[in-house]
Amino acid sequence: MLFFTQCFGAVLDLIHLRFQHYKAKRVFSAAGQLVCVVNPTHSLKYAPTRCAAAQTSVEQSILPPCHHHEAVHDPQLVPCTCPLFSCPWEGHLEVVVSHLRQTHRINILQGAEIVFLATDMHLPAPTDWIIMHSCLGHQFLLVLRKQEKYEGHPQFFATMMLIGTPTQADNFTYRLELNRNQRRLKWEATPRSVLECVDSVISDGDCLVLNTSLAQLFSDNGSLAIGIAITTSKVHNAEDEM
Amino acid sequence: MLFFTQCFGAVLDLIHLRFQHYKAKRVFSAAGQLVCVVNPTHSLKYAPTRCAAAQTSVEQSILPPCHHHEAVHDPQLVPCTCPLFSCPWEGHLEVVVSHLRQTHRINILQGAEIVFLATDMHLPAPTDWIIMHSCLGHQFLLVLRKQEKYEGHPQFFATMMLIGTPTQADNFTYRLELNRNQRRLKWEATPRSVLECVDSVISDGDCLVLNTSLAQLFSDNGSLAIGIAITTSKVHNAEDEM
Repeated sequence: MLFFTQCFGAVLDLIHLRFQHYKAKRVFSAAGQLVCVVNPTHSLKYAPTRCAAAQTSVEQSILPPCHHHEAVHDPQLVPCTCPLFSCPWEGHLEVVVSHLRQTHRINILQGAEIVFLATDMHLPAPTDWIIMHSCLGHQFLLVLRKQEKYEGHPQFFATMMLIGTPTQADNFTYRLELNRNQRRLKWEATPRSVLECVDSVISDGDCLVLNTSLAQLFSDNGSLAIGIAITTSKVHNAEDEM
Repeated sequence: MLFFTQCFGAVLDLIHLRFQHYKAKRVFSAAGQLVCVVNPTHSLKYAPTRCAAAQTSVEQSILPPCHHHEAVHDPQLVPCTCPLFSCPWEGHLEVVVSHLRQTHRINILQGAEIVFLATDMHLPAPTDWIIMHSCLGHQFLLVLRKQEKYEGHPQFFATMMLIGTPTQADNFTYRLELNRNQRRLKWEATPRSVLECVDSVISDGDCLVLNTSLAQLFSDNGSLAIGIAITTSKVHNAEDEM
């Protein structure tokens, strides 16, 4: 009986997933777009041991989680290249992707334009939705974070980071797009490098910011679809000098 | 001597205005775009007598400022058609434009695409920047409001309202665009009718919302340039049903 109940649950989950997938595809209807359903991860901020316990193959040390915008002089010693909230891991830039895949089980997707479908937006802060995006010969990390900057008022912050240096990041532009209920919100910016630390990007507010009411307007049944596109940067416009 | 000092001040102001105008034009470089410098108005919320005192030619009554989303059954009795923060004026929809021009001295601009340059963004909340926009045979009202939803954390809210009925408003789409420092933020939505009251649109958060850090990133020397475009709505897309 238990077996049948579980099977039935799994089938229902699959149908639900398929339905979400279908709806996200309808929103972002460009042909060939990949829709990825991303489940939330409760932020590691209050459970640093969970992250540390999972580390087996890399050296580890208990460091402060981030060196905000600190210049990295020695390429052999990269602090805070794991962009996850308070994961104390450190390692070379080249192994960040494998650390994220193996330790944090973060999926990696191919394609110039993908749809990120974050589920269970109602979960309490702090919560992260994370995916890696392989595109134009580089790997990018999309982080959607629910966080309470002001107590009792959770907000959503979405940003894209290049798993590479700040100089490499300057060559790209990323776009995040929400589209629902006759409303459209687009954010375009140069990705930041993971060396700059996602926590400081979010605390600076230099990303797509949604308050709860906007997030609800763009959500469907507790899921938020974010269209993602990455392009190489054009020649800087006149406004950049301003 | 006083005369010379004042003259010199006026000339400096003119140069500053010209410079801001020039910079806003460079950001939104499409030919023929009109740039309008909009000065702030300290919100009337805490000074209802200022608004009432200026009313000379219209009937007035001390009413609650807004009937949030209330259905208007009798077209002869329109509550809260003055969309300004706590202005107790009431009158017919047809005379809202003249009330706004005469009583509140709000400018009206022509053109499908204009640039709204809000000055003195540093002023404390509550503050409004308001302009009317005449386009496609209708008048729209752009309201940028600085308000503290959470004490000590001012935010900026920008929305466009049609000076017309909700049914008329459904025929249009407005776009607000910020573009500076290699960042771009676009908000597209159907305008709300002034009958729905700007206060409730802002308290619902169904508009472009900027926290202080984002507003600073998009500002130049205390001024924020917002590109505005209005179009007639296309046939509703599939996502509208979702």
